[in-house]
Amino acid sequence: MRALRLPAWKTEPELVEVDEPTPGPGQVVVRIGAAGACHSDLHLMHDFEAGGLPWNPPFTLGHENAGWVHRLGSGVTGLEVGQPVAVYGPWGCGRCARCRVGVDNYCENPAAAPVPGGGGGLGLDGGMAEYELVPDARHVLPLPEGLDPVDAAPLTDAGLTPYHAIRRSWPKLPPGSTALVIGVGGLGHVGVQVLKATTAARVVAVDTREEALRLAEECGADVTMQSAEGTAEEIRRVTGGRGADVVLDFVGADATLKLGVAAARTVGDLSIVGLGGGSLSVGFFSVPYEVSIQTTYWGSRPELLEVLDLGARGLVRPKTTTFSLDEAMSAYRMMQDGTLEGRAVIVP
Amino acid sequence: MRALRLPAWKTEPELVEVDEPTPGPGQVVVRIGAAGACHSDLHLMHDFEAGGLPWNPPFTLGHENAGWVHRLGSGVTGLEVGQPVAVYGPWGCGRCARCRVGVDNYCENPAAAPVPGGGGGLGLDGGMAEYELVPDARHVLPLPEGLDPVDAAPLTDAGLTPYHAIRRSWPKLPPGSTALVIGVGGLGHVGVQVLKATTAARVVAVDTREEALRLAEECGADVTMQSAEGTAEEIRRVTGGRGADVVLDFVGADATLKLGVAAARTVGDLSIVGLGGGSLSVGFFSVPYEVSIQTTYWGSRPELLEVLDLGARGLVRPKTTTFSLDEAMSAYRMMQDGTLEGRAVIVP
Amino acid sequence: MRALRLPAWKTEPELVEVDEPTPGPGQVVVRIGAAGACHSDLHLMHDFEAGGLPWNPPFTLGHENAGWVHRLGSGVTGLEVGQPVAVYGPWGCGRCARCRVGVDNYCENPAAAPVPGGGGGLGLDGGMAEYELVPDARHVLPLPEGLDPVDAAPLTDAGLTPYHAIRRSWPKLPPGSTALVIGVGGLGHVGVQVLKATTAARVVAVDTREEALRLAEECGADVTMQSAEGTAEEIRRVTGGRGADVVLDFVGADATLKLGVAAARTVGDLSIVGLGGGSLSVGFFSVPYEVSIQTTYWGSRPELLEVLDLGARGLVRPKTTTFSLDEAMSAYRMMQDGTLEGRAVIVP
Amino acid sequence: MRALRLPAWKTEPELVEVDEPTPGPGQVVVRIGAAGACHSDLHLMHDFEAGGLPWNPPFTLGHENAGWVHRLGSGVTGLEVGQPVAVYGPWGCGRCARCRVGVDNYCENPAAAPVPGGGGGLGLDGGMAEYELVPDARHVLPLPEGLDPVDAAPLTDAGLTPYHAIRRSWPKLPPGSTALVIGVGGLGHVGVQVLKATTAARVVAVDTREEALRLAEECGADVTMQSAEGTAEEIRRVTGGRGADVVLDFVGADATLKLGVAAARTVGDLSIVGLGGGSLSVGFFSVPYEVSIQTTYWGSRPELLEVLDLGARGLVRPKTTTFSLDEAMSAYRMMQDGTLEGRAVIVP
Repeated sequence: MRALRLPAWKTEPELVEVDEPTPGPGQVVVRIGAAGACHSDLHLMHDFEAGGLPWNPPFTLGHENAGWVHRLGSGVTGLEVGQPVAVYGPWGCGRCARCRVGVDNYCENPAAAPVPGGGGGLGLDGGMAEYELVPDARHVLPLPEGLDPVDAAPLTDAGLTPYHAIRRSWPKLPPGSTALVIGVGGLGHVGVQVLKATTAARVVAVDTREEALRLAEECGADVTMQSAEGTAEEIRRVTGGRGADVVLDFVGADATLKLGVAAARTVGDLSIVGLGGGSLSVGFFSVPYEVSIQTTYWGSRPELLEVLDLGARGLVRPKTTTFSLDEAMSAYRMMQDGTLEGRAVIVP
Repeated sequence: MRALRLPAWKTEPELVEVDEPTPGPGQVVVRIGAAGACHSDLHLMHDFEAGGLPWNPPFTLGHENAGWVHRLGSGVTGLEVGQPVAVYGPWGCGRCARCRVGVDNYCENPAAAPVPGGGGGLGLDGGMAEYELVPDARHVLPLPEGLDPVDAAPLTDAGLTPYHAIRRSWPKLPPGSTALVIGVGGLGHVGVQVLKATTAARVVAVDTREEALRLAEECGADVTMQSAEGTAEEIRRVTGGRGADVVLDFVGADATLKLGVAAARTVGDLSIVGLGGGSLSVGFFSVPYEVSIQTTYWGSRPELLEVLDLGARGLVRPKTTTFSLDEAMSAYRMMQDGTLEGRAVIVP
Repeated sequence: MRALRLPAWKTEPELVEVDEPTPGPGQVVVRIGAAGACHSDLHLMHDFEAGGLPWNPPFTLGHENAGWVHRLGSGVTGLEVGQPVAVYGPWGCGRCARCRVGVDNYCENPAAAPVPGGGGGLGLDGGMAEYELVPDARHVLPLPEGLDPVDAAPLTDAGLTPYHAIRRSWPKLPPGSTALVIGVGGLGHVGVQVLKATTAARVVAVDTREEALRLAEECGADVTMQSAEGTAEEIRRVTGGRGADVVLDFVGADATLKLGVAAARTVGDLSIVGLGGGSLSVGFFSVPYEVSIQTTYWGSRPELLEVLDLGARGLVRPKTTTFSLDEAMSAYRMMQDGTLEGRAVIVP
Repeated sequence: MRALRLPAWKTEPELVEVDEPTPGPGQVVVRIGAAGACHSDLHLMHDFEAGGLPWNPPFTLGHENAGWVHRLGSGVTGLEVGQPVAVYGPWGCGRCARCRVGVDNYCENPAAAPVPGGGGGLGLDGGMAEYELVPDARHVLPLPEGLDPVDAAPLTDAGLTPYHAIRRSWPKLPPGSTALVIGVGGLGHVGVQVLKATTAARVVAVDTREEALRLAEECGADVTMQSAEGTAEEIRRVTGGRGADVVLDFVGADATLKLGVAAARTVGDLSIVGLGGGSLSVGFFSVPYEVSIQTTYWGSRPELLEVLDLGARGLVRPKTTTFSLDEAMSAYRMMQDGTLEGRAVIVP
């Protein structure tokens, strides 16, 4: 079968012929219907070298996958060949306190995982191929009626990541509250949809790009602002002086973190989702009282089931452009140039 | 001024001339813009006698009120004459653990309240008059921009009561869950709106009346069912066998409680909101595991602020018919006959 | 090996010779160190007949087990032969929304479980034998340091069941609150310990037997009361008129449920844990406002890990009497006669 | 009456004669039984100048006060002259969303408060005098039976501040979890007591001073460590590699914040309580996944009621040394020199 593989650090991926995988006991092979292309893949291509991560190339890219059950390993129950499924991406040890409740994204025993701190497309072979081997059937989730693999694939990361960041902040988002979305790209525009679908909070979206703000409006943002000097003050103004109860920074650069903390309401949340590499100085007098600042990484398996439900009912629908496996590299190039709107999905 | 007063138990209310109230220290007189007529008023007219409640007639009816600040007693700050306001209805002692956080509806020292377990229109003079005396300024809440008293009045009970019942169950209403609304009348149709505005749960609405189901659909219900034999099984069917995560019984009769428990999912909620006088036998083997069954009564002051926000943004909009003070009794008669759709609002 | 088996409904268990079990793929055989004897075993012996439960005898009794890993089936990782372990008792399907997060006690696909709605000692062979076959390694939990199987076994049910009932009510048990424990037997006395270890609530314990009240005092109860007319009023008196924030009924008879609801504070919890077969009539005017009434059944796997930690640190220590396999039936007889204090543990 | 007043920025307080205060409508004069001396008073004496805070001297010091009701202003109900009371210290506007639920410490309309962002002893006259004027009766809380003003005073800040920081983290402190207390001084040693009284978490206490560690042990800490190179690693070791679920930094210096983040478990909490002036650089790759970092400031009125209950029952008991008003300055000097153990309480 054909697969888009990263052969080594600091190289371009290559489309090569590899053997079709065979499932061992408890494992599943999924025929890929769609594999999302993610900004973090660009980091994998360009920004790492040996020792930077706990695993190394070569491996097939694609950590945002959906398709159909193709082959079941011995002992797997509850799944049927041909059934449409999504693949939960973070593959933990399966036995620590976190994995026991489906929070593989924060596995506390990565040494016992299939690959430490990674998964398919992140150290192990991923979904930019005709088939993907999933090393434990618990990661394979049946799609609800009405959701096909092309729509489901981007939900497993571009959907799940903002969903997790928002869901943990629900208690701070009752009617009368405001959520601030910084950066309306592949994840941010889904974040706006998730906020509108699951809360009655006012949604303020900020971006530097006008077309991103138009996308935010399409997704239901109540207020959009092109970021500029004075944006934080403007956010305070539209929130009656209080600030945003929850800030979701999908960029994560120095400037966006600074905006976020300047716009946050006391006792709010500021979640750093984007990998922009920025940092924020936090001390008793430098942030509003009791604003909780944290990173969030991906999401849990039970949360993915909830995202798939939102997808099946049309309440969350990532904007996507589809590419064939042959066109995958041009998708990444458009992503790098910032000319791609929404999420790129590779359909093998 | 004119006021619709209940002169004695088991009598009809009378429209009479009374003195305009004067505010004492810390008190506020509100010029009434609208006063909602409630099913519980019918109970007051017909079902009680001396000793049945901790207070007695005569008093002016109307416990669902909004208007404009008319006169401020000494020491009142933060309010201005002419400002549009809603009146929070349950008036507690102001000093117990519950009142301290705005949960006057469950005041634990009713003997120290203006009237034990009541309020304006419930033992004290209410809003079916030109003016209402509010005995503590904390019950007077400024309206958010975009909300006028006629729209605000029904939110203070017909909005707040279902809102409280739903808000306490939010943690059981993530995407993929189902909320069952039994009874789509004055409170139930607002309940459907609140569920749609604040959660991504599927909403199933059940009623005996076709026009109520049409109203449920207008309010956004995902599924409507005319209640019949087999309704509980049908609800299990549309929920994949699991049942409804949250059941809101806005009727509270024997039959609706029986339906609710038959349709409830394990570890769900079943809230009895309606005063239908029914009861349910609860034991280890008679209800699904860990379904929480409780009554709910009205709501808290912070919750009313959230409801007003939903109202101002058009996310919750009770269906109303307006009547003048002279027509108030015909409103009650239509209510009794079941010919009134939505909520009756008296505009003095 | 020897095993105490229930041969048929409405018979006495027999100590017989059976084959030692062999683990299949993913399974584990545990050498039993201790198996608790439970009141519900008496129900199994005397109160059921064919069709009453989704499974039938014969099977080995004992659903409260701990010991050491004896043999591992193929594919089991993370466990070592000889390691001391507890067995999580409710064995669900492993794939439904509940099982995915370790809540097998409320499995929603019992038809796909090893036995529907049961487990070892409940339809399948349990721990009153030298060895027990556990059909999925996820049910086998390593013991924390400092906890041996004899102390661990009763924690898996007599510990876990009250723990779950209490843990779910933690938000209603801050300082200043009161927990009422009704029935200080095998589960109730552990309930008192759990409350004292995990909250700062005042604990009031009620029982009909003086020796049970002495046990409650040993376990740390702040107030004990022998149940009588006026007990509910006395509880209101010691709680400043408010009543108990959380009522845990470990009996579940008509009289105890009546006491519980009479003693409950508004917006409290009343959890029916005991299988006493009682029932309570619940309606809008018959229970204090918003008291949540529910049954609870056993507990979740993550909760058992927490209970084992409490046990290892000596914070929860069920009072036990140990018996050999030969003496098991006399343990059940003492239990039936009410002459056994605390929990009976069978040590093969 | 005599009062210890701060006459100007960057001066020593003076013990002077001032007029006894008179209560206006809704106000209360409290006869002071005890007033705690706080580290933040030293900051007031030495570290500020005009414009640094929204208020200026002169004012009487003392923001941690308890005593007896002395005189009631008109309209005050629910309090009696002679009744022992504690004074809730942060005095907000009384009408914003925060003040409405007793969270005056985070008042959102400070311009409408008696003094912006302060209270008695912080811009207005405090409790280091024979009498204190409390501008709103809602700040005056009756003491529970068994608690006298000398024991109650330090609970209003040295008790309430750690209590709030811990209470908000309860959901992360189930059995099996670890709380790390950094700095076992006036607030930290109460923090250890609160953790032991309200949770079953393991408590690890770190300080540079041996006597502080002895105090931590007296308060019930499970593990104490003198801070040194390798302390973070040692904490990871005693927590099975996971780290501390909740870190409470009662120092707030650069070094302690660095230790806290190095010792924190993923998805944990790191609360900055101490005013040590340190800061922490927070970014996606510099802190463990989803550790929430926030400051906390004082606590809410409902929380103070809970702390008073803990105090009355002997579950929380700040270590104190008492001084007369004449000796107050020597108390501050000992505090500055670090020779005072526990909390200094001035008894007029």
